[in-house]
This record gives sequence, C-alpha cells and structure tokens, in this order.
Amino acid sequence: MTDMRARVAVLGMGEMGRALAGALVGAGRPVAVWNRTPGKADALVGRGAVEVGVRDAVTAGLVVVCLYDHASVHETLDPVADGLRGRTVVNLTTTTPDEARELAKWADAHGIAYLDGAIMATPPMIGAPGARILYSGSREVFEEHRELFGLWADATYDGADAGMASLFDLAMLAGMYPLFAGFMHGAAMLQSAGVTAAEFATRAAPFLAAMTGVFPQIAQIVDGGDYRGPGQSLDWTVAALDAIARASREQGVEPVPIDMVRGLVRRQIEDGHGAEDFDRIIEGMRAAT
Amino acid sequence: MTDMRARVAVLGMGEMGRALAGALVGAGRPVAVWNRTPGKADALVGRGAVEVGVRDAVTAGLVVVCLYDHASVHETLDPVADGLRGRTVVNLTTTTPDEARELAKWADAHGIAYLDGAIMATPPMIGAPGARILYSGSREVFEEHRELFGLWADATYDGADAGMASLFDLAMLAGMYPLFAGFMHGAAMLQSAGVTAAEFATRAAPFLAAMTGVFPQIAQIVDGGDYRGPGQSLDWTVAALDAIARASREQGVEPVPIDMVRGLVRRQIEDGHGAEDFDRIIEGMRAAT
Repeated sequence: MTDMRARVAVLGMGEMGRALAGALVGAGRPVAVWNRTPGKADALVGRGAVEVGVRDAVTAGLVVVCLYDHASVHETLDPVADGLRGRTVVNLTTTTPDEARELAKWADAHGIAYLDGAIMATPPMIGAPGARILYSGSREVFEEHRELFGLWADATYDGADAGMASLFDLAMLAGMYPLFAGFMHGAAMLQSAGVTAAEFATRAAPFLAAMTGVFPQIAQIVDGGDYRGPGQSLDWTVAALDAIARASREQGVEPVPIDMVRGLVRRQIEDGHGAEDFDRIIEGMRAAT
Repeated sequence: MTDMRARVAVLGMGEMGRALAGALVGAGRPVAVWNRTPGKADALVGRGAVEVGVRDAVTAGLVVVCLYDHASVHETLDPVADGLRGRTVVNLTTTTPDEARELAKWADAHGIAYLDGAIMATPPMIGAPGARILYSGSREVFEEHRELFGLWADATYDGADAGMASLFDLAMLAGMYPLFAGFMHGAAMLQSAGVTAAEFATRAAPFLAAMTGVFPQIAQIVDGGDYRGPGQSLDWTVAALDAIARASREQGVEPVPIDMVRGLVRRQIEDGHGAEDFDRIIEGMRAAT
C-alpha cells in the first residue's frame, strides 16, 4: 500500500491538472493523481505517479484540486469531507471570488485548512518563466508549501479572504480582453487599407505597453473620487471617440470596442459631468443591479 | 515688412498650435502665427514670433495648420487658396483618414504640396521625449522638413496616402481607450473589496504591458484568416468571460467592457464557429454598414 501521507494528490487530470502534477513528478516529488474518468494520467503514471481512488487521494499530505468548476469541486469533495478533516486543500479550480469564499467556509466547517489559487498561465507555461499563481486564504498553508508552489509558477499571497486571488485574477483579465478586442479593432481598420495586422502589432504593442504607464495617474483620480482636475474632459473625449468611430466606419469596420467606451462617456455627460475628467467613466460601472 | 518666405507660419493658436509654434521659437526659428481671434499668441509674440493676417501667413515658406477640425481648415484655407499655390502645407489638425485624403486632393487641385500629420502627444509633450507625430502624403515635404519636425517629436512617415497617418493614429487610439476602460473595470472590482486602484495599477500595468507581447501571435492568425488552430476557443472564452462578468456583478460592478467582448464572442458562436479561435472576433467587426 502506498504511503499517501508523503504524497501530493492532484485531483483533476484536465490539461492544467496534468501540467501541475507533471511539474511535481519532474521535481522528484511523490505524486498521487485522481480523475473522475480514468486513463487520462497514463503518461504521468509512466513517470512515477500513482493513480488512486478519490478516498485514497484525500488522505495525501497535500490535496491539490484542479477541476472543471465550483460545482465539480463540491461533487468531488462533499462525499469525502470526513476523510479530509485535519488535512489541507489547495484549490486551483477556476472560480469566482464568492465561490472561493463559499468553499473556504465549507472547508472551515469540516476542519479542513483551505488555500485558494488563481492560475495566470496556460498549461504549457506551468514550471516555465512568466507563469504566476495568486493565492489567498490560509497564510499558514501558503507559507508551508511555498517551495512546492515555486515548482509551478511565481507565487504571491493576496490575503486571508479566500476570494482575493480569484478577484485579482479576474480583474486583470477584465483588462486583458478589452485590450485584445481593441487591438483587433485597430488591426481591422488598418487591414482595410492594406496594412497587415503584423505591421500594426509592431507599432501598437510598444504604444499600448507604454500607455499602461498612465494607470497610476488614473488610479490616483479614481481613488480620490474628484474628477474636476485639469485632465482630458468627457466632452473632449466624446469628440475624439466620434472621430475614431467615423474613421472606422469609413474603412468598413464596425467600431464595437469604441462604441462601448462611448456609451460609458455619454452616460456621464448625460448626468451633467461633461466638463469633468474622462476617468469618471468608472462611476458608470459601479452599483450594478 | 516681414520676410515671410524665411518664416514658418503656424495657423491656429489653440493649446496644441501654441505648443508647436513655441518649440520652433525656442529653437530660434523665425515664426509667424495666426489665429481667427487675435490675442492668444501674446506670449509667443513676446518671445519673437510675429502675429500676421491669414493672407500674409500663407506666404510663409512652410504653412503649418493646427485648427479645430476638418471644416475649419477649409474655412480658413479656401479663401486664400490662390496665395498658397506653389507652397507647402503641413496639416496637423485632427481629421479622419478620408478627411485627410480629401484635403490632399484639394491641395493637389490648387498646386499645393500637402503633408498630413497626426500628433500622438498632449501639448505639454511637444518637444519632450515620448512625443510622436505620424506623417503621410508628400514624401518630398516630409524629407525636406524632417529636421524641423524633430523639434516637435519623433517623426515617422507612413506613405503617400495622406490618410495613413490619421488611420494609424486612430487605430492605436482604438486600442488605447478600451485598455483604459478595461483597467477601470478591474479597478472598480477590486475597490469594491477594499483594494485601491493604485495597488491594482502596480500589478495590472506590468501584466497588461506583457500581454501586448501576444499581439504578434494574434496578428499572425488574423492575417492568415485561419481560425481553426490550437489556440483558445470561442466556446472556452465565453465561459471565461461569463466568470469575469459573474464575479464583477457579485462585487456590485457592471462588467461593461467584458460584455462588449462577450457580444463579439457570442456573435461568432451563433454563426457556428464556437470551436474556432477567439481571435475570430475580428471578423464580427468587418463590413460595417
């Protein structure tokens, strides 16, 4: 019989779970793996991992969970909650902050130490430079397993609120997707004039990377909440956005990302704030129903 | 009487026009200035510029135009078109590409050499590092005055099509505004959990700057037009966007920028492309009516 206490168990053999387990096996750590449907871990077993049932898996010294979603975490762990009492779960399943907080409460009620993690990397990046995993929840668990976490990615701890890792992760992705959509909009404008997206990328990438340097100034204004400064006014901005939208349509391109920004700007102008700073658009996103 | 041939005339004494003229005066160039309503150039006149009528201004060796918009360029230059014959106009007024092309045609019909420019800088940045002005139209004019342009900003030439400078400029701004809106969305999510936008900026800025490194890969796919590659699928992406939107609403923040991206993704999925690459969203922006 396998000594499970010495092992790290990885639950979930999707692409990411296999990458996480693979990095541990590669570093010589004793690893146990489990998946709902068997057979996905064959390559890992060939490298020394043991495939076990879920009741055995949760008796490992450290239980790493990387499943499809929040519901599948409960489906997998609820039936074996008693076996987990006194043990440690690191949950790297993608969840919302409230889902992570709910799991932390559930773990607490069952006497389980809980750390939540958000992976800012694709599976091939695990164990390679540039990967980052954010953690929040139990600081003790984070400190105890810091060296192991370093086998996967740069690790940062975002506080005792288990939802913070997910919140930081999703907030950064909330910036990434509009960045990509905006780049593609600009690329479509230029493609329509015979310029390749590749050529546009060589100019847009350094320009937009440099524009992230404006974030601290935006932050200062939105943290202060005073939008009457000498910056770019909403009235001026709407004219600039209109010019982009007009130019885009002239080129046969629908300015979807710019229309989104325009909607936020117009909302503030309609509320009587046209002379105030552009950064006021953040107020239109608060207090969702 | 002033020797106008030796002078550079700057038409338009708004904030940007004053900055452009000021950089020339500061470099010891003989400068003439004009504005529809006089008195805005007093500080420049005190530093050696001469204020002249528009008929005199257009007899300068180089006529730089920085007015409110495309219509004001015509209102100002149409009555003095004959005086401009054989001379050179560099138009730095913000216009759309088609407006720039129209002005280039108008100039050609009147025997005027025409170069269009798009200023990627705020007025205080003129003459300082980091400012850039894109030019397109007459290559001869660009080459002849390259040294003078260097007094304002880094100068690049984007080809004989007078609309290209404006098109590149607006395409890059089409990336910038969604980037800012996305950053503010993320900041609002974190502020609702007690994290300042300033703290978020220290993490979001390097992350999003690094994400511009993905542009060449996106460009390769959208230039090739084959979205069946091994990248992130539209079906997978819509689940990721749903998670961000759900987390955002949990925090009381309306996910406006993410809903925009989601709309583009859903459009492709509804057209039957769910298994294809996320970058296919660019196709939903083409062929605006």
